[in-house]
Amino acid sequence: MKVKNNIILALDVMNGIEALDICEKLTPQLDTIKIGYPLALAGGLEIIQTLKENFGYKIICDFKVADIPATNEKICQETFNKGADGIICHGFVGSDSVGACKEVSEDYGCEIFLLTEMSHPGAKKFLQSNADEIAKMGVDMGIKNYVAPATRTNRLKDIREIVGDDAYIISPGVGKQGGEIKETLKYANSVIIGRSIYQSDDPRKALEDFIKKI
Amino acid sequence: MKVKNNIILALDVMNGIEALDICEKLTPQLDTIKIGYPLALAGGLEIIQTLKENFGYKIICDFKVADIPATNEKICQETFNKGADGIICHGFVGSDSVGACKEVSEDYGCEIFLLTEMSHPGAKKFLQSNADEIAKMGVDMGIKNYVAPATRTNRLKDIREIVGDDAYIISPGVGKQGGEIKETLKYANSVIIGRSIYQSDDPRKALEDFIKKI
Repeated sequence: MKVKNNIILALDVMNGIEALDICEKLTPQLDTIKIGYPLALAGGLEIIQTLKENFGYKIICDFKVADIPATNEKICQETFNKGADGIICHGFVGSDSVGACKEVSEDYGCEIFLLTEMSHPGAKKFLQSNADEIAKMGVDMGIKNYVAPATRTNRLKDIREIVGDDAYIISPGVGKQGGEIKETLKYANSVIIGRSIYQSDDPRKALEDFIKKI
Repeated sequence: MKVKNNIILALDVMNGIEALDICEKLTPQLDTIKIGYPLALAGGLEIIQTLKENFGYKIICDFKVADIPATNEKICQETFNKGADGIICHGFVGSDSVGACKEVSEDYGCEIFLLTEMSHPGAKKFLQSNADEIAKMGVDMGIKNYVAPATRTNRLKDIREIVGDDAYIISPGVGKQGGEIKETLKYANSVIIGRSIYQSDDPRKALEDFIKKI
């Protein structure tokens, strides 16, 4: 995946009109948007096509897919059918569940991103100790894209070492959560930024300020 | 939660018309339905209200919610806003993520179900070894409802011992996946059955046959 300015906007709002309003202010410095279930459930998956038609964006659906293989397959089919370019899936549900997402993404010529680790405090309990193993599982499966957090660059570096230089890493946590863009991009290919841009008084300037720092 | 005949139908189809057609055949022996993301994404969350208005069902959304607390909160709000009575969330993401779902469910007077374990082969890698700890975390948090698989009743029994007799356990895997209804109901309060009913030539008879076995 190629991402303009190496910045993906996390459009974590809960209604389509607000989403479109934010995008109006930010194009053309962006070409890739990450949306989650809150927006998809509020506005329907049709929001994907609306964003693509209005702005030409690539859309990554951050659905953290974490079900049995048969259900993961259906979730991916439905998401790619509605126009998504990529989907984020959890690794802790195992290789068959991730494999189902991978197969569907290949059928559609789309991308799957494997989530290796999360940065909220609760992730320490079960997820963090398995993050390296999840990344290794991804490598064994031939997964090319990963999600790893910007809030701990030492961990991001570890994940990069596991997945190799050819893998594409996208990294959330820059901005309000404390991650620093230039440091993060030493190890990640693109950063994911949300509130620091779209909640800013001047979103376009906030985005430009991030771009200047790269 | 009170479930008629202790059977929840897993309505794992991908379009609303098919879903309604199946329900037509099965009411009035059922009063609780579990839907997943495939149907919710295909038909929109409005399917919840449609099912409730047409059949008076209680609806559990099996969304296996597995995000950071702030996003889990939004997913639950959106789901309960659209009329769901319960939601299933993953425990693997930690107590803060689960806590966010619990808080929202209490605000809405709805139910949260904590998924402790899954029965597909891939679950052996990361999930199974943490299932008891996830159940214990749920108990510590005051979670009252759990999801545990019917395919291994020895594990179901272990989970019951951890969560206690007052907890409400719903159990998928009866029917095509091999779980036996009567044995499962020794440890679970309700079973979740999908394909063995809705893919049957005679869904109503298939449901009645299960009821007879209880």
